Amino acid sequence: MARVTIQTIAEETGLSKFAVSRALSGKSGVSEATRLKVAETADRLGYRKAAASSKLLGVVFDDNDVANTELHMQIQNGVQREAQILGYALRIRSTRNGVELEALAEECSGILIVGLHSQENLKRLHHADIPIVRNSWLEPLEPVDQVGATDHEAGSAVGRFLLKLGHRRIVYVHGDPRYRGRMERLYGLREVCEREPGVVLHDLIPEEGRDFGEAFDRLAATVEKPSAFFCAHDGLALTVISELLARGYRIPRDASVVGFGDYSAAQQILPQLTTVKVPGVDIGRMATRVLHQRITNQDFPDCPLRLHVPCRIIERQSTGPAPA
Amino acid sequence: MARVTIQTIAEETGLSKFAVSRALSGKSGVSEATRLKVAETADRLGYRKAAASSKLLGVVFDDNDVANTELHMQIQNGVQREAQILGYALRIRSTRNGVELEALAEECSGILIVGLHSQENLKRLHHADIPIVRNSWLEPLEPVDQVGATDHEAGSAVGRFLLKLGHRRIVYVHGDPRYRGRMERLYGLREVCEREPGVVLHDLIPEEGRDFGEAFDRLAATVEKPSAFFCAHDGLALTVISELLARGYRIPRDASVVGFGDYSAAQQILPQLTTVKVPGVDIGRMATRVLHQRITNQDFPDCPLRLHVPCRIIERQSTGPAPA
Repeated sequence: MARVTIQTIAEETGLSKFAVSRALSGKSGVSEATRLKVAETADRLGYRKAAASSKLLGVVFDDNDVANTELHMQIQNGVQREAQILGYALRIRSTRNGVELEALAEECSGILIVGLHSQENLKRLHHADIPIVRNSWLEPLEPVDQVGATDHEAGSAVGRFLLKLGHRRIVYVHGDPRYRGRMERLYGLREVCEREPGVVLHDLIPEEGRDFGEAFDRLAATVEKPSAFFCAHDGLALTVISELLARGYRIPRDASVVGFGDYSAAQQILPQLTTVKVPGVDIGRMATRVLHQRITNQDFPDCPLRLHVPCRIIERQSTGPAPA
Repeated sequence: MARVTIQTIAEETGLSKFAVSRALSGKSGVSEATRLKVAETADRLGYRKAAASSKLLGVVFDDNDVANTELHMQIQNGVQREAQILGYALRIRSTRNGVELEALAEECSGILIVGLHSQENLKRLHHADIPIVRNSWLEPLEPVDQVGATDHEAGSAVGRFLLKLGHRRIVYVHGDPRYRGRMERLYGLREVCEREPGVVLHDLIPEEGRDFGEAFDRLAATVEKPSAFFCAHDGLALTVISELLARGYRIPRDASVVGFGDYSAAQQILPQLTTVKVPGVDIGRMATRVLHQRITNQDFPDCPLRLHVPCRIIERQSTGPAPA
């Protein structure tokens, strides 16, 4: 006999899978009559929640920005380590196919969603009757579990670090502003800069189709020479360092550069990059812990959570005192 | 025979309690020789970590701002509920006496520090050889466990809520700026306002010794009439509503007011206050969970954590569409 799934109950009752899922999980949006009908059908067909019968966790990626690859691998390694401790097998998928995602949700006890995903796919997964943890940013107050890094604090900490070195003209270099974490770092940095009299913060986003070099030349033509660059990720920092070197800057004597991520390239470029270590492995471990609590623990408080793991500044050779 | 404590080992070895504590917990800052000496002495005297022998949690308050009393009670209730589930007894203290705090730390397996505390007392507690969770704001990237509310997100959500009602001239009313959460709400609100063309955000902090009424009159004399007030806590919202009513404003027809906290007064004032519910009970429960994990679970990832529980906007009668 085939396994009884939400799909089976939907076909049997003539209801949508969404309604069946809401009814089974006791969520709002279905009438009492529907809830009863679903419960009876589920009982009669011998439906068992995936969570009760499998020890399987899903990890889903859908992100083509290579800037995130190393972080995603670290998260995946953390999940793997913690899953082993807790006795889960893993299903890891990189996909944006909604049907495939639904099939995964049917099979797993819980799913970790890493990085950006389409709203439509997020909706599909949240409708599944299993715990979901997301790694990337949410809407304000969205009632969903999130596990990530302390982007905002990291921005503030880099700000303090640069001010302490005497920098007064600081540039934040953006990549793709869809990544909310990168905006958070800017806001954290700004918060510190604006409290310090005389500090000027520029926000540099190359226009579509133009590169950092052009954007920098335009900035340099209009304002006093900036002495420090905080880059939204290590990849951008490589670009910034090369463009500055090509323009005759000596780093860190003429300008300091800070990255974000602490990926392998940070120690390959010269001067080696001062950057912020994102605790990817710990993020993966904690996300797995939260899923485990949700799956196994009846007592676990049912409020949604934001769980952030603090980053760490790694000081190398690309930063130094501000030029006199 | 008296119980062997860190104090006993300190006396026996002639080292400071700080050094003994660091050595026992494997933290940095002590030499290998010291670590060995402490380990041998602890062994010889039969020292057992408090964590292993007691099922006692401490909760410490040191905050005279009555605006926080209700939140603190909720947190305490949450701790109590979760402690019962997990089998802990509680020691609840409101004190700023450092010696008393150290004695508490000797007795307990873990301590939750609620609200503001002096740096000196925080240092004393962090030196104790037990897990510590803090509820109020930390230094950027400070390696300490924190459990609290989503202040920043709440500010952004209130911003979206007011913009949707058509408000374009918004005032954030401060209380005591030492409370970092109140600044976070302002930053969250600002983030949303500055993305919307034509929206003006004022930041109103009464000067020392002056009250909201005077500050408001000065603001009203210089700028176009604001139509919405987001107050740093419900207590301030009561002041703002009364002062506006006294000046002939009809609420919400002429101006909307939003509080923060959802304390009992929010439903006692008329019009009843639209505000943000802070999940105090859930914060208390989650803080207790984190302490429990740290105390009992060898496998628990040892990265520090920020754990925030999302708030919720409660819409009542003090808000409405912006005046035409």
